[in-house]
Amino acid sequence: MIQNRGDGAPGQVKEVTSLANPLVKDIKALSLKKFRDQQNAFMAEGLKLVIDALDLGWSIRTLVFAKSARGNPAVEKVAARTVAAGGTVLEVSEKVLTAITRRDNPQAVVGVFAQKLMPLKGISPGEGDVWVALDRVRDPGNLGTIIRTADAVGAKGVILVGETTDPFSLETVRATMGSIFAVPVAKASQEAFLAWRKGFSGLVAGTHLKGAVDYRTVDFGAQPVLLVMGNEQQGLTDELAAGCDRLLRIPQAGRADSLNLAVATGVMLFEIRRAALKLDGDSRS
Amino acid sequence: MIQNRGDGAPGQVKEVTSLANPLVKDIKALSLKKFRDQQNAFMAEGLKLVIDALDLGWSIRTLVFAKSARGNPAVEKVAARTVAAGGTVLEVSEKVLTAITRRDNPQAVVGVFAQKLMPLKGISPGEGDVWVALDRVRDPGNLGTIIRTADAVGAKGVILVGETTDPFSLETVRATMGSIFAVPVAKASQEAFLAWRKGFSGLVAGTHLKGAVDYRTVDFGAQPVLLVMGNEQQGLTDELAAGCDRLLRIPQAGRADSLNLAVATGVMLFEIRRAALKLDGDSRS
Repeated sequence: MIQNRGDGAPGQVKEVTSLANPLVKDIKALSLKKFRDQQNAFMAEGLKLVIDALDLGWSIRTLVFAKSARGNPAVEKVAARTVAAGGTVLEVSEKVLTAITRRDNPQAVVGVFAQKLMPLKGISPGEGDVWVALDRVRDPGNLGTIIRTADAVGAKGVILVGETTDPFSLETVRATMGSIFAVPVAKASQEAFLAWRKGFSGLVAGTHLKGAVDYRTVDFGAQPVLLVMGNEQQGLTDELAAGCDRLLRIPQAGRADSLNLAVATGVMLFEIRRAALKLDGDSRS
Repeated sequence: MIQNRGDGAPGQVKEVTSLANPLVKDIKALSLKKFRDQQNAFMAEGLKLVIDALDLGWSIRTLVFAKSARGNPAVEKVAARTVAAGGTVLEVSEKVLTAITRRDNPQAVVGVFAQKLMPLKGISPGEGDVWVALDRVRDPGNLGTIIRTADAVGAKGVILVGETTDPFSLETVRATMGSIFAVPVAKASQEAFLAWRKGFSGLVAGTHLKGAVDYRTVDFGAQPVLLVMGNEQQGLTDELAAGCDRLLRIPQAGRADSLNLAVATGVMLFEIRRAALKLDGDSRS
């Protein structure tokens, strides 16, 4: 059942309670990469995230909110911004929200946004800029956590090399905790990446189990740094390892073969940004 | 259908192809905490992990392997060790393995082990020892990754404070990548932890958003260190924060509210162990 509401935003908010509704079906389909690609869209959950996304200039297609959120001034404001941007606003039942997000106790607000990637050739690193390249990253949680960490250390963006998990999957977006909207993401084949890398005017540092250099002994200074991290199971391809200026290693004790990829990337990023990050410069201090 | 095999380990390997088999039902039930607690058991996947666990003295209850692994000398050896330890060996169909592990393309070998926790009062830290305490950790992936990281930096163990996710869940064990067998885990109520902490002869350092001290300015030296990390959503309780000698903070740039818990713990642990970890001391160098 669809009907226009008589109050608030007349004619602009659609009430939907049926899972068979075509708009709901399109949103539900976003859980599959095939349909995300077809629609060039993705979903993000939570009122705060949706507001952040709008503030950062992302294009909203559909705003979905629960009946329970009706009358919430912040939600009404986001609904008005969605309509002003040419988007659709749906007020739905709890059942519909649960189906869309595939989780119990869903957030009361969901936004559907247009996907946005940064073209590789648009990247021209300046002094002190840090970029992260991920070789065939497989786990959505790892990718999302790395995008979140890149945001936390002030890195400029994340480049996905080769066949990777989708940055716009629900699980990845969740793990970014909103950083998907703040951190530019680029995608490239290994060939395109290696060609672009030739023009990178800074240090290209790979993390490698066979790396001979302790990651803490490098003076990263103020030059741009491109950190290259390998696949969870196999590490870097030989081609990517050969494309690095330096191969670094994180010393380890104990019997663990390796660190989790997101943890290793975090440890590397905090080392590269060691001089740049200060409590004084922290907006929360 | 159960029958004794006529070859290899006569009378000691049971062939099981039915999901209704009581032994299989008991193992399948281990996906729920209630039944893990009732049986005081948990499941670990992969031949290498099972061998590591046996080498580290863990008590195996049941070894399960796929028909396809029959005749594999390493599997036969583990089967013999299981029988010698009084355990049961099951050769099962792919269908049974998939049901037990709840994943497609399951590993060919699964071990069921007795749970083992370290009693809190058994912990008496020596020089340079590092322990990690986790306040109400909620996410199984985070807990598993932190146990893996503790192993990688050579920390002595992980203490779970308050209501936490189960260290023996399939998801946590998977994320530890085998470190569940190498890193002692203790559990305590907040009260018991705070009472025990009074006798801790070293530095108790909490990570806190309100911490005034940059985590890199502390001289951890050779004293024992107890790192206390808060819950994913709420951080440390007031009581735990008050129980710390120092409250530290990791400086951040960008707009992210915070780091993922496993990443923050990794960054802290690599800082605390900064002087102790060297490439020279690395067994793989």
